[in-house]
Formats: sequence, structure tokens, C-alpha cells
Amino acid sequence: MEFSYPFSAIVGQEEMKRALLLAAVDPRIGGILVFGHRGTGKTTAIRGLAGLLPPMRVTGDCRYNCDPADERDRCPQCAKDAANGRAKSRKAPVPVVDLPLGATEDRVAGALDLEKALVSGEKAFEPGLLARAHRGFLYIDEVNLLEDHLVDLLLDVSASGFNVVEREGLSVRHAARFVLVGSGNPEEGELRPQLLDRFGLSVEVASPGDVATRVEVVKRRDAFDRDPRAFAESWKRKDAALRARIGKARDALSSVATSDAVLEQAAALCLALGVDGLRGELTLVRAARALTALEGGAAVTAGAVRAVAVSALRHRLRRDPLDESGSGARVERALVEIAA
Amino acid sequence: MEFSYPFSAIVGQEEMKRALLLAAVDPRIGGILVFGHRGTGKTTAIRGLAGLLPPMRVTGDCRYNCDPADERDRCPQCAKDAANGRAKSRKAPVPVVDLPLGATEDRVAGALDLEKALVSGEKAFEPGLLARAHRGFLYIDEVNLLEDHLVDLLLDVSASGFNVVEREGLSVRHAARFVLVGSGNPEEGELRPQLLDRFGLSVEVASPGDVATRVEVVKRRDAFDRDPRAFAESWKRKDAALRARIGKARDALSSVATSDAVLEQAAALCLALGVDGLRGELTLVRAARALTALEGGAAVTAGAVRAVAVSALRHRLRRDPLDESGSGARVERALVEIAA
Amino acid sequence: MEFSYPFSAIVGQEEMKRALLLAAVDPRIGGILVFGHRGTGKTTAIRGLAGLLPPMRVTGDCRYNCDPADERDRCPQCAKDAANGRAKSRKAPVPVVDLPLGATEDRVAGALDLEKALVSGEKAFEPGLLARAHRGFLYIDEVNLLEDHLVDLLLDVSASGFNVVEREGLSVRHAARFVLVGSGNPEEGELRPQLLDRFGLSVEVASPGDVATRVEVVKRRDAFDRDPRAFAESWKRKDAALRARIGKARDALSSVATSDAVLEQAAALCLALGVDGLRGELTLVRAARALTALEGGAAVTAGAVRAVAVSALRHRLRRDPLDESGSGARVERALVEIAA
Amino acid sequence: MEFSYPFSAIVGQEEMKRALLLAAVDPRIGGILVFGHRGTGKTTAIRGLAGLLPPMRVTGDCRYNCDPADERDRCPQCAKDAANGRAKSRKAPVPVVDLPLGATEDRVAGALDLEKALVSGEKAFEPGLLARAHRGFLYIDEVNLLEDHLVDLLLDVSASGFNVVEREGLSVRHAARFVLVGSGNPEEGELRPQLLDRFGLSVEVASPGDVATRVEVVKRRDAFDRDPRAFAESWKRKDAALRARIGKARDALSSVATSDAVLEQAAALCLALGVDGLRGELTLVRAARALTALEGGAAVTAGAVRAVAVSALRHRLRRDPLDESGSGARVERALVEIAA
Amino acid sequence: MEFSYPFSAIVGQEEMKRALLLAAVDPRIGGILVFGHRGTGKTTAIRGLAGLLPPMRVTGDCRYNCDPADERDRCPQCAKDAANGRAKSRKAPVPVVDLPLGATEDRVAGALDLEKALVSGEKAFEPGLLARAHRGFLYIDEVNLLEDHLVDLLLDVSASGFNVVEREGLSVRHAARFVLVGSGNPEEGELRPQLLDRFGLSVEVASPGDVATRVEVVKRRDAFDRDPRAFAESWKRKDAALRARIGKARDALSSVATSDAVLEQAAALCLALGVDGLRGELTLVRAARALTALEGGAAVTAGAVRAVAVSALRHRLRRDPLDESGSGARVERALVEIAA
Amino acid sequence: MEFSYPFSAIVGQEEMKRALLLAAVDPRIGGILVFGHRGTGKTTAIRGLAGLLPPMRVTGDCRYNCDPADERDRCPQCAKDAANGRAKSRKAPVPVVDLPLGATEDRVAGALDLEKALVSGEKAFEPGLLARAHRGFLYIDEVNLLEDHLVDLLLDVSASGFNVVEREGLSVRHAARFVLVGSGNPEEGELRPQLLDRFGLSVEVASPGDVATRVEVVKRRDAFDRDPRAFAESWKRKDAALRARIGKARDALSSVATSDAVLEQAAALCLALGVDGLRGELTLVRAARALTALEGGAAVTAGAVRAVAVSALRHRLRRDPLDESGSGARVERALVEIAA
Repeated sequence: MEFSYPFSAIVGQEEMKRALLLAAVDPRIGGILVFGHRGTGKTTAIRGLAGLLPPMRVTGDCRYNCDPADERDRCPQCAKDAANGRAKSRKAPVPVVDLPLGATEDRVAGALDLEKALVSGEKAFEPGLLARAHRGFLYIDEVNLLEDHLVDLLLDVSASGFNVVEREGLSVRHAARFVLVGSGNPEEGELRPQLLDRFGLSVEVASPGDVATRVEVVKRRDAFDRDPRAFAESWKRKDAALRARIGKARDALSSVATSDAVLEQAAALCLALGVDGLRGELTLVRAARALTALEGGAAVTAGAVRAVAVSALRHRLRRDPLDESGSGARVERALVEIAA
Repeated sequence: MEFSYPFSAIVGQEEMKRALLLAAVDPRIGGILVFGHRGTGKTTAIRGLAGLLPPMRVTGDCRYNCDPADERDRCPQCAKDAANGRAKSRKAPVPVVDLPLGATEDRVAGALDLEKALVSGEKAFEPGLLARAHRGFLYIDEVNLLEDHLVDLLLDVSASGFNVVEREGLSVRHAARFVLVGSGNPEEGELRPQLLDRFGLSVEVASPGDVATRVEVVKRRDAFDRDPRAFAESWKRKDAALRARIGKARDALSSVATSDAVLEQAAALCLALGVDGLRGELTLVRAARALTALEGGAAVTAGAVRAVAVSALRHRLRRDPLDESGSGARVERALVEIAA
Repeated sequence: MEFSYPFSAIVGQEEMKRALLLAAVDPRIGGILVFGHRGTGKTTAIRGLAGLLPPMRVTGDCRYNCDPADERDRCPQCAKDAANGRAKSRKAPVPVVDLPLGATEDRVAGALDLEKALVSGEKAFEPGLLARAHRGFLYIDEVNLLEDHLVDLLLDVSASGFNVVEREGLSVRHAARFVLVGSGNPEEGELRPQLLDRFGLSVEVASPGDVATRVEVVKRRDAFDRDPRAFAESWKRKDAALRARIGKARDALSSVATSDAVLEQAAALCLALGVDGLRGELTLVRAARALTALEGGAAVTAGAVRAVAVSALRHRLRRDPLDESGSGARVERALVEIAA
Repeated sequence: MEFSYPFSAIVGQEEMKRALLLAAVDPRIGGILVFGHRGTGKTTAIRGLAGLLPPMRVTGDCRYNCDPADERDRCPQCAKDAANGRAKSRKAPVPVVDLPLGATEDRVAGALDLEKALVSGEKAFEPGLLARAHRGFLYIDEVNLLEDHLVDLLLDVSASGFNVVEREGLSVRHAARFVLVGSGNPEEGELRPQLLDRFGLSVEVASPGDVATRVEVVKRRDAFDRDPRAFAESWKRKDAALRARIGKARDALSSVATSDAVLEQAAALCLALGVDGLRGELTLVRAARALTALEGGAAVTAGAVRAVAVSALRHRLRRDPLDESGSGARVERALVEIAA
Repeated sequence: MEFSYPFSAIVGQEEMKRALLLAAVDPRIGGILVFGHRGTGKTTAIRGLAGLLPPMRVTGDCRYNCDPADERDRCPQCAKDAANGRAKSRKAPVPVVDLPLGATEDRVAGALDLEKALVSGEKAFEPGLLARAHRGFLYIDEVNLLEDHLVDLLLDVSASGFNVVEREGLSVRHAARFVLVGSGNPEEGELRPQLLDRFGLSVEVASPGDVATRVEVVKRRDAFDRDPRAFAESWKRKDAALRARIGKARDALSSVATSDAVLEQAAALCLALGVDGLRGELTLVRAARALTALEGGAAVTAGAVRAVAVSALRHRLRRDPLDESGSGARVERALVEIAA
Repeated sequence: MEFSYPFSAIVGQEEMKRALLLAAVDPRIGGILVFGHRGTGKTTAIRGLAGLLPPMRVTGDCRYNCDPADERDRCPQCAKDAANGRAKSRKAPVPVVDLPLGATEDRVAGALDLEKALVSGEKAFEPGLLARAHRGFLYIDEVNLLEDHLVDLLLDVSASGFNVVEREGLSVRHAARFVLVGSGNPEEGELRPQLLDRFGLSVEVASPGDVATRVEVVKRRDAFDRDPRAFAESWKRKDAALRARIGKARDALSSVATSDAVLEQAAALCLALGVDGLRGELTLVRAARALTALEGGAAVTAGAVRAVAVSALRHRLRRDPLDESGSGARVERALVEIAA
């Protein structure tokens, strides 16, 4: 067994941590993009999240993470079992799946099970990383270096919520809904606009600029590297509290009210910023609702919309050659204007 | 079972919805191209169309969607069965087939059935997506990003109405007539002129520019995402009415009259605009006829031609460096001139 | 069974129709190249030709279209059968074979019959499209987009009249003489000069420029699309008359006289135009002879040479930067000069 | 048996030798990058290191170099054996694995064991060079010429300490922690910044500039080439002394004290130099600690930090177009400034 | 059986015909390169040569064309048979092998006999076109379009006289000495200098510039195309006379005297022209000797050297930017100078 | 049996012949690079060398050319046989292996023995050209055209003296020490500096500039081509004498004295020329020693160093844009300076 650095032990980086928590509460927010230089703890935070999430229920030994409580999107075997009343259910950790840059399309999307094909002459499908990430997280480090054909694949799957495999005589379609978490350094390659648009929230991280914080980070990291088990033990309680808070927010989500005033505020903001399409608006509303649930509120407020506006819209702005301020500043200025 | 967003519940986007309905009435109109930014509901509309279309009759278990009422173009098995009086017929939904960008040519055009080849040493053909889309719709999201060799394949098939496979010792030719529906963002890559020409109609979509409409769209979408089944249920009746109207228009199509005056109007318009070839003219006439049928008219009128002229011709104009107005405006100006 | 648009029903496009008829009378003329924009009926004309041609005699079940009356170039099986007096003969339609742009070299040139190789361990050759097109027509739409290695292959075969396959341990050589029919839009890619030179005749087609003709084209096309069978029936007699005329011209061909004066006229014309090599001259003479046969004449006249000169030479001129007139005009001017 | 040139017999090149020794004491320092022209003894030093290192304990016949004393990261077989009390342990030399530039990804990361797959139909994993280098050294000569996909692979593995293989139906993850030693000539191709960042220390080597040293180098090399065995014998004792010193430093490492003052000195230095992220800081502290252990000290001093600062930070500086001094000089200047 | 155009019936093109005859007399002259536009009869001449050559003796059923009279370079089977006194000998036509541009390296150089490998598990070599061309001619039309790797292969084989195959676990080396005949249009791609140097002689061909000759060419070609058999028959006797003359020249070749004066003339000419290396000189001497033999002379004269100098040296001159006269003119000028 | 042109019969080209002889005496000198135009006898000299070399002793039927007298670097089989006292020894010609430009990496480095793998399911290694060249010569004509991946392979093997194969589940490492002989024309492509550096000596060859020598070369070549056997016979004795001299020099090599003064001279020369690294220096000393041995001297003199300095250093100089004299001239000038 190995230990990951505890989420609660991360020093600073509040915007990133909040975005990850919002996606944990409502996965329909649609993916987190983390911008930042090397060594700013991006990977650590995402691996830490894995240790936090409350477990989910899956059907017996289903390899597609079918949800026993949801009759939509069942895989053929689960559908058959459910019809016969034979479906079993068990608890499983929410998957956090790494997509290594060098992975082949076969392994990501799934492929013909060669072993079975050779041994029994049967054409069976072997699910890939997308199936394994269903209902969880799919993490891509240096997402801006991902090969184009994998980006195409992720775009298709993110748009439809389904993975469609049409090759080698196979024709498979299974549900694949996950939070896409990408990290990247904008200096090392741009993301295609379509892929940018698939990320619900974006956050920026940076190295701390004061000696005291840096010493604290190095101290904790050095302590973890020397004895991971003891370090994890000392942060166990804080992580547990956070897990409980996420669980409660999920349960509360559907009862959080969203007034027309809030919807109008979101629409006015997006119109003012000239954001293409309506995905930004939907994300803004959902993120504000998830934040409200996480903070225990009953109805989304204009303040909650404001709190998530930069994360939800920053990466959806068109370049404005006459406006040299950053995207975040432009979102904040628009918030002031529409409130005026 | 999964639910798609109901076609009737789409807010606005009238030009796109009309073009899809015209193609549903007369598939010989030849393909719909939807231009627009991300998040403007293109994908939603096309998936919604699938739930609308009246079912079609196909021969028993034919994998080429052979039409029991049409003795042309039957596949060898259906031809044999028909000769022996053994052909059976059943109802099937009109297919709406996705062509994912990453699909291999094998899977699109069909290929040697490897399983059969290995097991029984028999060289059988396994039909591909083109066969499956026969008599239905073939949908390509981001068609401007499609690989060149697939574009070549689609051009061949669209031109001839047949899919010819000459590889791996196979020599197969089967009917493949479908409405090609492509969506794309013109800013992200141009279409080759030949492919452009294969689309009968083109439409432009954009995000709504007023707060009220945007709030309505976000509200409906949010409602659908929270409970797809209930949402679909509430729009069931409107969809059914539309389905009936399409069915009636199809039946009426062959009896709609097309006067020489109308043909001359179309020819004059195309000559005035300098459209290459005669495909634009044919499409214009057919689209006007389908519109007439859909609206219950008995004869195509000059007004019907005018109503579809922009959609039918906009994408067939040559760039005119001296005329800075858009293609749509040029079509409309020519309509005025020839009427004068 | 499917119906192609009748050749006789094509409106206008006289130069193209004449070139196709000349090649049908004397295939040694060597290929027809059709230049023109999309939608000008190129494909329709070539498919129409298929329905016109009188059937040819082939040896029993020979897969190389061996001619029972020609002892040259027989395939090994036919040679053996002929020696044993066992050769049978049957009538078959003159083949019109499509070469799709995406065809693999294997399928075009022929390849190892994998099935036989795997099942019986025998290395048999499976003839390709070139074998199937022998003694008929090979049609390539958008020939200017053909991949280079297929162009190389076609050049080799057109030059020698034989298809030589040297791969996968196979060493096969069979006769492959066909009329290469290519269509293309010169704006979308140039042809390599060697390939240009292999085409005997070239023709240009364009959309009609008057409303009346355009209305007639659209009317006939619309009628055909609505009921192909009835439309074909109504043009059956005209097609039959044309077929009879081709048959008669073929029989008469070898008895048409070609005087030295005509040969000198052709040589003088080619020298005046600076055409490379002697292939243009040979083609000119042959096309004039075929035209004479088709028109029932007994001897080639200077007028017949003039009638085919533009088609036979237009595509063989070198670019002359000082002469801005088109190739056709230059040929016509030279005709006037040498006549002076 | 073959002989490598003894590490102790290397003339000069003190910075390189010290960096290699520090990494031998604490592998978490993270990789050594050696810059320099051809023929400056880079390869010799690294191969010499192999003869020096004290042996390590590994579990029985484990192919992943599992550590019997470490219950984390065991491979499945070792985990099972440990649970059953059947784990055996033996001494093995610390691996120094060459990664040849032409190695395939399969062989580096491991791959399906084809032999087993063909013979027994079993899908077994055959570990690659990364598994073999676990707990040792992975050496890449001319690392700047390494193919991109191998660089990606090394980045993934160096970042996570695990090798994840997702291909050919395999899904394997095993520990792979090693000191990456790369040598390269900066004039022949740059390293990607991410890969640079993965190297803990960088050193520069050059040909000696005085005749006496050069004569000594050539003499020793010539002696070694003529009789490697005798030469190795004559330096055996010096190598053994060095090996003992490394062993002692490793044991002492965890008890070396690191004061907050030292951590603050490191942070101040990195802030002054504007080094991205915190990896430079961590490396600086670890290298100073390893140096202290190697020199028998009880607590890290500011002097130890200064001693390793150039090696630890030189390759992490951003290019400063206004500062023409080299990276090393900039680090030394910053050391003076923060001490002031 | 098919007929090629008789060599004797070729109108004009004297330089080309002489070069081919010289190579037929002494193959060590080393290859003929024919420059010229399309349609100037290059291909015709080379195919005509095949019908001319006197047959050669080969060992029984040897697939490497082993010469029964030459104990060098025998293939293993022939060597064994000769040792056992079991070698048989038969007459065979001198091979004229086409190397199609699209040929694979496998088929040119030879490859593993897959059939045997699969059926009997035996690794046998299947000889390629190079083996088949041994002791004959290898013809490449459009040699300037040949793929680089085939050019490399031809260079290796031409330089050594042996074909070495090192692939697929095969290690074969067999004699492959042939006259390489290449034709090409210099306007369509340059030859690599190494390949140029491998051609012993080069000739230029052009379309005839007078009407009478052109009419004669077209007349003969037309006659041949109409009835190849009758045409061949009418030139049979002239071809036979030429064949006899070649045979006599071959027998006389070794007794033709080559004085030092002639060698000095050749050396002085090459020095004056600055030709690289000595291959030009050797070729010059050999071509003059072959010409002497063909013309029945007893000793090479200065006149014979002059007669072949342009063909032997033209393609070996370096570009001289100050001298705008063609290569041929420069050779002729140098001939005048050294004679002065 | 075939004959190569005798080494002794080569006219002139003294520098090249001497370099080849030095490498034959001491292979550690490290490779000979021959620069020169086509047709200057490079290939002839190297093939001639093969007929000269005294045979070497190898172990029984070892496919790695293991040396029975050297217990280092034995292959596993030879090591086992030696341990059991079963090793046999035989005489074999020193290998001169051609590396054709088109060779695959598999065949050069060795690969899985497919035959064995398929038949017996055993994964055996089939040694490649590198194994066959061990203890001999590896010859690459036109080495500057070698593909990059083969250059990489040669660099790895030349640097380490071992061939490491890590692919297809094989992990093999065997000794591969050979004299790399490359010939090339510097005008047709540059060598990578690393590969240049691996060549111990470089020589330049050119066509002779006087008529008498040229006539002699052409005469001998012509004589050889007409009757190789007789020609070889006539030079047999001279070749034998040279062989004996090489054998004697090899035995004397280890007892030739190398004074510190000589080492200092070499170091001073390399410092004066600014040669990177120390490989030039080592080569200089070794080449001077081999020359001394070949000339029967007892101790290396300053004169011997001077005699080989140009060959040993010419290709290691950096381009000096201010010094237009050639590399050879610069070496000679430095020799004068350091002597001053």
C-alpha cells in the first residue's frame, strides 16, 4: 500500500482546492483545468483528492461502474441482471484514473480483447480507461501536450457522455461521464478552444512568494517523503471532516433553490463578456449552486455567483487586443458593471 | 434507455430546425451543414431529430437497411429472398448514425469480417457505418476536422449513392443514401469546396443575444439535466404532432406541382449569382417543394423559392473580393434583382 | 437493378459526348480527360456511356477478359484451353470500372489471394481493377487528386498495355488495355505532364449559360430522380440507335483510308505547335479516322483532322508566357496558319 | 567478466564526482545531468560508479527489485510471499542500467511477454528497463537526443515514482524509483524544461587545459586499455574506501539535523533567483544534507548549502537577456546578496 | 505471344541505337542513360533490343542465371552440381527485365520465400529482379523518379556486382551484373551524381524536326499497332543481320588491341575536362574497343575514342557556370584541344 | 570463388593505404574515414585489405567470434565451454563485413530468430552484422548517407565496445569491437560530429593528376577486369610480404616504448589546436606507436607523431571562420609552432 500526500495538508492554493471540491459535489460542472508552473503542487492536490472522496455504489463486478440506482445507461450485462433481479451492489472508491500521455487510443477507449479473440475466437470488448473513470475523475498531467487524436476522443466523449468505439469489427457504446482534471503550463503549448470549453472551471496556481510559506511547504514535504505513513496519520482527522462535508453537500444539492434573478445575473454577465455559447452560463449557475450546498446555504445568492465567476468564465473569453488586463480582471470588472 | 433533449423544446434557432425538417421530408435535398460556435445547440437539435422521425420499413434482418418496397438496390440476400417470396418486412426507427472523428475507414466503409475469416476461412463483408446510415442520417460533429481520406470516401459515396469497397480481396458495392448532417465552426478549419457542394442546405446558428431567451434556454437545459425522463415526458405531445406533419408532407411530396416559372426563377437566380454547376438549382427546387409539402401547399410558389434560397445557395457562392457583404446578403440582393 | 441516366438524354456538352464516342470506336486513341466544374454532368455522361456500348466476346469464365478471337496476350489458363480446343466464349458488357480515390494499390493492380494462401497454402493471384477494366473503360473521378503511387502505376500500365505485379513473392504480367477516363477540376490540383500525355483527347465542359437550357437540364434530372425506370424507358430507342452507329463505325475503321497529305497536315500542325514527341500526332490521326468512321466516311479528310485537333492537342502544349490566349485558341490559330 | 575504469582513478572532474556521490547517498536528490564535450570522461565516471556502490538487499527472485525491508510498493508476488512468510532476501549489486537511444518503448516500460502469450495463451507482463533500474541508476548518454515519447515516459515515471503501462490489454503499475543520470552536449540539442527540472543536480565537465593533467589522463587510459585487469587491481583499495564512506553516510542521513535557518536560507536564495516552483528548494536542502552526511557532519550548515547551490539551481534559472553572466555565476552572486 | 516493335524499324535516333549495341557487345561498359522527352521512342528501342540479342547459356534450372562456363560467382546449388559433374546447360534469351517504379525492395532484391516459410518452416530465399537480370539488361523507365532506397540498392549492386540481402534473418549474396538502362526526362527531376556515374554511356533523343521523318515514324507505328505480327515479320531479316553482327563483335572483343597512345589520349581528355575519378576513362576505352569490334577493326584508333567520347563523358562533367555551352559541346571542344 | 583487386597493386594513394595498415596493426586506433570523389579506389583498397590480413583464432563454432585466448567478453556458450574445458579453437579469416545502406536495424544489431520462435516457441537471438564484424572490419560505403538510427546504433556500440539489444523481449549484450571503415564524399552530406569523433584516422584521396599514373591505373584495372584470377596471381607475393609485416608489427606493439616527451608533444599539439576532449590525443599516441611497430622501431619518436598527426586530428578541428586554410594545413602549422 502506498500513501498520497493528504489533501488537508496542502499549504495555500485555495482557489484550486475549492474548484476540486465543487466538482466533487456536482460532477456536471464539467472538469477542472489547473494552470501553473512546475512544482506548485498540482499533482499533489489531485492525488490527495482521491483519499477524500466518499465511496460510491456500483453493481457487482461490472467493469463499466454501472450505478445500481440508475436505470439509464446500464451496460447490457447489468441491464440483463437487473431484469432478472440478480443485480448485486457493492461500495467502491470513486475512481481517480490517470491518463498517461503515452497511452494508446486502444487502451483509453477500450479495444478488442485479443486474448479472448485468440483463445476462443470470440470478439469481446475490453473496456479502457474511459470506462474505468466513469462516475469518477480522469486526470491528465500536461494536458496541453496530449496528442490530437486523444483530444478528439475526449471531446467526443465529454460532449456526449458516451464512449463510442467503432473499430476492429467492434461497435460498442457505453456511458462515460467523469470529471476531467487537466493540469498544464500555458507556456508550454496552448489548448484547443474546444477542449478549453469542456472544462467547467479553471484555476491558477503559483509558487508562494514569502519565505515563511515556502519553508512550511518544504518542511511538510520533507516530513512526508521521510515517513509517508506517519505523516498521513497526523492529517487523517482533517481529511475525514472534509469528506463528511462533501457528502452532505451532495445530498443537499437538489434542494438548493435557483431564482430567476440569479439566472438573469449569470446571463447578463456572459452577455457583457461576449462569451460564446451558453455553456459558460450553465457552468456558472451549477458552480454557484454547488458552492451554496458546500457552504450549507438554501438558495443561490448573487454573492455565490460572484465567488465562482472568475473560475467559470476566465478560460472562455476571447482575446481582446485592446484590453491588456488578464482574463480574471476582465471578469471582475464585468461583475462590477452589471451590478451597477 | 437514455433520453435525448426533445426537438420541440429547443428555444429559437428556427433556420436550423426548418432545414432539418426539410431534409426529413425529402432526403434527396442532400445534407445539412450547420455553422456556429460551441454551445449553440447544434448537437442537441440533431439528436432531438432522431426522436421525431416516423419509423421506416426494412426487410427482415437485412444489415443494409434494404427497403422491401423498392426493388432497386437490393442487397444480394434480399434480392434472393424477394425472388423466392421469402422476404419479410418490419418497422425500424430511421437511423441517425454518428461518425466519430477518430473512426477508421474500415469501420466507416465496412471491412472484411475478421472473425469469420479466421474461424471459417470465409471472406465475408462486415457492413460499416455507411450501411447502417442508409435511408437515414449520418451525423459528423466538427466536420471541418474530418481527415481527408474520410472526406474522399464521403464524397464518393454522396456522389454515387453507393459505397464501393475494394480492399483486402473484397469487392462490395451497396446502396448508401443518407442525409449527411455536419456541424462545424468556420473559424476552426475550412471545408473543401467539393464537400461543401454535397450539402444541400446550410444554416447558421448563434447564441441568443437577449437575457430572457438565455434564461429560458438555461432553465430548460438545467431541468432536462436534472430529470431527463420527466422533461421528455412533458414535451412528448409536441414532438408527436411534428412527426405527424412530417409523415403527411412525405406522402404529399410527389403531388406538389412545380411550374416552369418556378424553374426559371431558380435558374435566373443561380445565373445571377454565378453558382458553379446545376446542383444548387436542383437543391433550390427540391427544398422549395419540400417546404410547400410541409406547409400543405399544392404548388411551389415564388415565395417558397425565396424562403429557402439563402439556405440552398449561401455556401455555393465564390468569394467576391469586391463585395464585402456576407453570402446570405448577396443571395437576398440577387432575389430582389431578378424579381425586379 | 439500378438505372443510369441515359447518354442520349444529356443536354448539350457536345465536345465531351463526341470524345467519348470516338474512344468507344477506337480505344487506341488513348483516354479521355474531362475538365470542368462540379455539377456539369461529367460523371453522368461516363456512366451513361456504359449503357450504350455493344457487348464484347470474352472467353468462358476468364477473369482477365481474354478475347477469344485474339491469340496474343492470352492468360495462361486461356492459352491452355485454346491449345486443348476447350475454350468457350460468351457475350459480356464492355466493362466500365470505377477506380475510387481511396483504393489500395493491391486492389487496383491485383494481389496475393490471401484466402487461398491461408487455406490451401497456395500462392494464387487475385486480379484487380486493372484486369477487370481490360478491353473497357477505367474511370477516375477527380483524377488530379489521385495518389502519386497510383499515378505511377497507371503510367506504367498505360505505356506498356500490361500490368506487371512484382510483390509478395508474386510475379504476374497480364494485358491491361483500357480507355482511361478521368475527370477533374483544373483549379483543384494539376496533373503530372506524363499523365496528361497518356490522355488521347481532352474536353472542357461548363454549366449552360442560358435559362432555357438550365431549366431543361433540371427538369430531366428531376424526372429521372423521381422515376429512373420510366425515364430510362423513354430514351431507350435513342440510345439503341447510337449503339448501332458505334458498332458500324468499329467495323469500318480498318478500311478508312489515311492519305499522306493527311499525315503531313498532322505533322505540320504538331511542329507548328511545338508539341513534344509524336504521341499527339498519332492520336490526331487516329481520332480523325474514328470520326470519319463514325460519320460513315471512306477516307480521312483535312476537315476531320481540324475537327479533332483541339481535343487531341490542347493538353499537350507547353505554357507560352507571351501568349495569353488559351490552349484551344492556339491550336485553332495554328490550324489557320498551316492551312495558309 | 569485463572491467570498468575505476572511479578513483579518474583525474580531476571534482564537481561531477561529488554530484554522483551525493546521489549515491540520497537517491531522492533526483538525477544528475552532466554537460560537456565529447571525450571528457562522462561515460567513464558513471560506469566507474557501478563498481563502487555497496550492494542492496532484494527479495528472492523478484524481477522488480522489491526491497524486503519496505512493505510499501511491493509487487503482487512479493506481497503474497510476505503475507505467507515465504519471502526470501539476497544481496544484489545496485543496478546501473543503460538506456540506449534506440530502445523501444516496449523494452523501456515493459510489455506483454509474447512468448508466454503464444505458448500458454497467458497475458503476462515482462518488466522493462525501468523495473530493472528500480532502486539504482538509469543512465542515458546524449539524453538531449532522446526521442520525445521516451522523454514523456521518463517524465511520467520520475514524477510519480511509478511506471504505469496501459497497452496491449495490460494494465500494470510498479514502483520505479531510480537516479536518472544523463549526459549531453548542450551544443547538440536542448533539453525540454520539464526534463531539466527532473534532474536534481547538474554539473559541467571540460577537457583539462594543462599538459601535465592531459598526459596523466592519457597515460592512465592507455594503461587501462592495455591491461584492464591489472589496472583495476591497482585502484581496488581506493575504491573500497570510497564505498565504505558512502555506506556510512547513508546510515547517518536520517539523523542529520536541518535547522529552520537553513530552510530559510534556501527559500531566500530561490526567491532571489526567481526559480519556478519548490523543487529546487527541496533539492538544495537534500543535497546539502547528503553532503553533510558524506563529510561526517551532524547538522546542515549554511556552508553546505552554499557548496551545492550551483549544482542544485544552475539548470533551473530562466534565461535573463539582460544578464550575460552564466547561470553558475548568477547563483553565486545571489548567494553573496542573501548573505549580505 | 506478343510482339515488340523491331529494333531495325526504328527511324533515326542513331546515337541511342549505337550506345545500346555497344553495351550489348561489352556489358562492362556499364549502363546506358537515355535523356529525352516523352514519345521519342526510348521505350520502344529498349524493348526492341530484347528481340535482337543472341541467346546465352545458363545452367539447368538455376534461378540466378549462372553461367556454366564461368566457375566464379556460382550459386551454391550450381557449385555443388558442378563439383558432382551434374551441371546441365541450356540456351536462354538474354533477359531484359523491367523494374517498375512501384516495385518493392523485397521484390527487387529478393526476399524470404513466405510460402515455403509458412508451409515447411524453412527459410528459403526467393530471388528478385536483380537475380533475374543477371547477365542481361535491367530497364528503368523514368529512372529519375525512382525512390531513394531503390537508388541506394542499385548503387550498391552496380558498384560491387553482387546483391547482398541482409534482412528477415536471411543473409544472401549472389552475383548481379547487368546493363542498367535508364530513361528519363531531365526536366522532371535530377539524378543523384552517384547514380549518373554508374551509367557508362548517355545519349540524348529528340522528336524529329522535319515533316517527312515524322510522317514515316507515324506510318510505321500505325502499321505496327494495326497488325504487329505482320509488321514484325517484314523486319525479321534486318534484325537477324544485326544479331549476327553483335555476336561476331563479342567474339572479337578480347583480341582488339588497345595501344598506350590510345590510353594516353583518353587520360589527357579526362584531365582536360576535369572528370572526377577514373571511371570515365575506363568507360571511354571500353566503349571505343566495343565500337572497334562492332565495326570489325583490329585495334582501337583515336577516331574510335573520339566517336564515343561525348556519350562516355557528357554526364560526368561538373557544371561550369562560366561556360554556357552544353556538356556535349564541351567534350567536343576538349577533343579538339588535346588533338592540337 | 571470386577475386578482389590486390592491395599491393593499388597505384599511389599512400596516405589511405598507410592508415588501413595502422588500423590492421592496432584496431584500438578506432576507425578509418576515407574522403574522396567517386572512382578514386576507396572501395578497392578496403576490399583488397581483406585478402591481406593474417587469420585470427576463434572458438569452435561461436557465432560471436569469441577469442579463445581472451577470457573477457566471452559469450555465454563459450564461457560454459571454457569452464568445462570443452572449448575448441580454429583459424578464421579476419572478417571484413559490409554494412549496406539499406540494411535494417534488426539485421545490423541482431534480432529474434523468428524461425526458432515459430517452430520451437523458443526466444533465441540471431546475431547480426555487428557480431560478425567483431575483431575485424565493418565497412560502410557512403557513410554520410547512413540513416540516423543506424548512426545512433554505431555510436553506442563504438563507444562501449558492446552491442546491447533491448527489443522484442530480448535482452542481449555481446562484445562488438571492430575497425569502422567509412568512405564518403564530403560534398554529398556531412557526418554528425559524434560520428566523426569515433573515427581514429581520416585520409583524403583524389584522382591522380598526371597522364602516366592514370594510364597505369586504367591498364591494371582493365587487366584485372579481363582476367581477375591471373592478375591476382601476379601480385600474390607482394601481398604475402605485407601480411607478414603486419603480423610482426602486431607482436611488437606492446613492447614499443612511449616516452613522456612524446605524450607531452601530443598534448601540446592538441591544446594548440583546441581539439575537444582527449580522444584525439589518445589516437595520436596509438597511431604513432602502430607506425613505429610497422616500421620496426623500438620507441615512438617525435617524427612518428608528426607523421600521423594530420590523419589523427584533421577531422577533429572546429571550423575557424577566420582561417581559410584547410584542416590539414592547420595541423601542420601547429606542428611547426609547438616544435618552435
